[in-house]
Amino acid sequence: MKTALIHDNYGINEQGHFTVCGYDTVELAKEYGTPLYLLDEDKVRAMSRLYTFNAKKYYRKARILFASKALSFKGIYKIADEEGLCCDTVSSGEIFTALSAGFPPEKIYFHGNNKTPEDIDYAARSNIGCFIADNLTELDIIDETAARYGKKANVVIRITPGIDPHTNVKVVTGSVDSKFGNAIETGQALEIVEYALKKKNINLKGYHCHVGSQIFDPQPFFDAADIMFEFIADAKARTGYEAEVLNLGGGFGVRYIPEQKNLDVEFMLSEIAGRVRENCEKYGIAEPEINFEPGRSIVAAAGVTLYTVGNVKTITGYKSYISIDGGMADNPRYALYQAPHYPIVANKADTDMDFVADIAGRCCESGDLIEEQVNVQKAEPGDILAVCVTGAYNYSMASNYNRLPRPALVMLSKSGKRIGIKRETLEDLIRNDI
Amino acid sequence: MKTALIHDNYGINEQGHFTVCGYDTVELAKEYGTPLYLLDEDKVRAMSRLYTFNAKKYYRKARILFASKALSFKGIYKIADEEGLCCDTVSSGEIFTALSAGFPPEKIYFHGNNKTPEDIDYAARSNIGCFIADNLTELDIIDETAARYGKKANVVIRITPGIDPHTNVKVVTGSVDSKFGNAIETGQALEIVEYALKKKNINLKGYHCHVGSQIFDPQPFFDAADIMFEFIADAKARTGYEAEVLNLGGGFGVRYIPEQKNLDVEFMLSEIAGRVRENCEKYGIAEPEINFEPGRSIVAAAGVTLYTVGNVKTITGYKSYISIDGGMADNPRYALYQAPHYPIVANKADTDMDFVADIAGRCCESGDLIEEQVNVQKAEPGDILAVCVTGAYNYSMASNYNRLPRPALVMLSKSGKRIGIKRETLEDLIRNDI
Repeated sequence: MKTALIHDNYGINEQGHFTVCGYDTVELAKEYGTPLYLLDEDKVRAMSRLYTFNAKKYYRKARILFASKALSFKGIYKIADEEGLCCDTVSSGEIFTALSAGFPPEKIYFHGNNKTPEDIDYAARSNIGCFIADNLTELDIIDETAARYGKKANVVIRITPGIDPHTNVKVVTGSVDSKFGNAIETGQALEIVEYALKKKNINLKGYHCHVGSQIFDPQPFFDAADIMFEFIADAKARTGYEAEVLNLGGGFGVRYIPEQKNLDVEFMLSEIAGRVRENCEKYGIAEPEINFEPGRSIVAAAGVTLYTVGNVKTITGYKSYISIDGGMADNPRYALYQAPHYPIVANKADTDMDFVADIAGRCCESGDLIEEQVNVQKAEPGDILAVCVTGAYNYSMASNYNRLPRPALVMLSKSGKRIGIKRETLEDLIRNDI
Repeated sequence: MKTALIHDNYGINEQGHFTVCGYDTVELAKEYGTPLYLLDEDKVRAMSRLYTFNAKKYYRKARILFASKALSFKGIYKIADEEGLCCDTVSSGEIFTALSAGFPPEKIYFHGNNKTPEDIDYAARSNIGCFIADNLTELDIIDETAARYGKKANVVIRITPGIDPHTNVKVVTGSVDSKFGNAIETGQALEIVEYALKKKNINLKGYHCHVGSQIFDPQPFFDAADIMFEFIADAKARTGYEAEVLNLGGGFGVRYIPEQKNLDVEFMLSEIAGRVRENCEKYGIAEPEINFEPGRSIVAAAGVTLYTVGNVKTITGYKSYISIDGGMADNPRYALYQAPHYPIVANKADTDMDFVADIAGRCCESGDLIEEQVNVQKAEPGDILAVCVTGAYNYSMASNYNRLPRPALVMLSKSGKRIGIKRETLEDLIRNDI
């Protein structure tokens, strides 16, 4: 079995080494040490443009919000700003990081099922563009906070449309039973809209919904659009209020392994735009601004993690383990979701993937695996193992479990490479210990 | 349903507030903010003494190693040292933290399935007491490193006895198929012993095994002792080498919820000591030093996490959610293992637990829950929610997911309270961003 280059920024060079953005990953591992996060800046920009260009192409009033919980550090907000993206943030920490990078506050959207009063105060003081309000409690706090600053806060309300896109149960957030949002089915969505309309310091902009994760087909978005427009029409009939904004959330699928397909972003956006227009006509509603929130699909393929292979162990008659110098501390996605991963022995990328092994992290925990029984090149101690498609939810979810310093992140571009996040030191680990 | 005080350091005071080490948790939340880790230092010391006292009482040559991956920060190593514990560490980061706290290097044991050459060099330079070697590759590196420093390294070899103690699959490490150790069944255990005996700079001390986690019954330890002594005898017959040390690992159970029992540490240790002696007699082997590695069971009950309740949402006809200002970022154990938790509304601890809800974390992820459909007091925004038994694998596994700063940790003792770990600031989050 030959190495599959599952994204267009991955390659194999003349030395038979795996490359990202044209850079030899074996050389990068030597230069920066392992474990090491790589982030292909050109790929992030290309994906950003794929969304912004096609959204505008098929729907004039479209806006792309980068869901920065997928990857949040100063450098990513600079790119997002340069590429014309707004940002979906979920905490004071993300807002602070964005602002520290010079990201325009008015392009910041603030999400979350439990923003604290301190968060809301910080966001209001920082003049962020829009709150995506989750619940009645929060609406009260946003209203009071805006009043205190003599402002009107832009608010989009999170609605639960009740759709199950048949993805991993842990990342399904659109069904009626969810910690997020307000269900249409129970009448609670309409209730919160009426509540918001009475608030003096809230400028209701419209509605938000999110139907899930790893969606490759337009159908869940069609369903969401159909349900949301019916709701817009219903709310208009009851209250006279017509939404200016409809945020259809994120969840665009990413190819993690060869068996998955690459998402056709243009097809998705054109199809969804068509459905939105059909709904506008059906209900006699003016075309609202449509927002999308891709996060994973903008940064995932841009990321590759490099590890050094330590021990390779074959338990006679059972199976083999390739142990690496990182694991669930820098990438907890297998431990959390059994998310599939595609590992490549970077210095043997041109050889057959005819060795079957578990990729074991170095944490003292049996569940610290990156993949089980996966085909990979025959690995030996000292080899460099590249794990593909780790740009999303790796650095952002990284811990210091087992007191492991978090890896550096190197940003790659055809025009040069640079460190985006410095490697944590041992001193960093005890910085807050007394 | 009344609040159960599942550990002897938990209480309810005259105001009806939940207390830890006699301190009013509602007052602590007010003073230090939330989310907040509490660590009852007196309880840590009491648990440490329970192990050291009873181990010595029933077996003269017993030694307790605190498995510090359960909770690693400078303050815990000071306590461990004062209480006469050795430490089981799993990385340079843990060793560095221990040494920074003045912990004696000779009492440090170094574990892990994939210690890097840099780790081994650091450990050797630091004069740690003992390596627990996982595999052949590592033995080579330890031997070479020790030679470079003109030393002989003490080594205990990790053996896989092939026991399934019927606990959570993710924390079972004693069965034959494991990333850890060397299986007796396949002959690989004997092979590595023979290999180690030939190494000039390795001083083979004995064997280690670990059978699992959350063990409440001596039987898995009996099985381990039986298998390990058979192996000691077998290895002696083949090589002439008789182990001086037998490390039976950790895995001692902890009561997380009322339905679980409290472990009888004295009973466990006395029973295991008896079995060890029986085996010594059976095989005509001199009594080895016995090591145990409790981690979780020393610190878990000492820890309680305090959160502020934000929104309380009831989805009509479905269920209720209590949203808190922390979650999987400070405690990923429910997301990872669906580990059971016992939450108490701290300011209403004397009222009935007659409200059924999911405890939802604040991360923008459906899987960010701390418990599902659990009985708790009727919560309202602003209430303080205490989640019990979070001293182990909470701070040590904490991340900055959603760019949330990690909570402070306050150490409580009858003689006073103090901050053990400072709360992370927003500035801390971008410290390594360029």
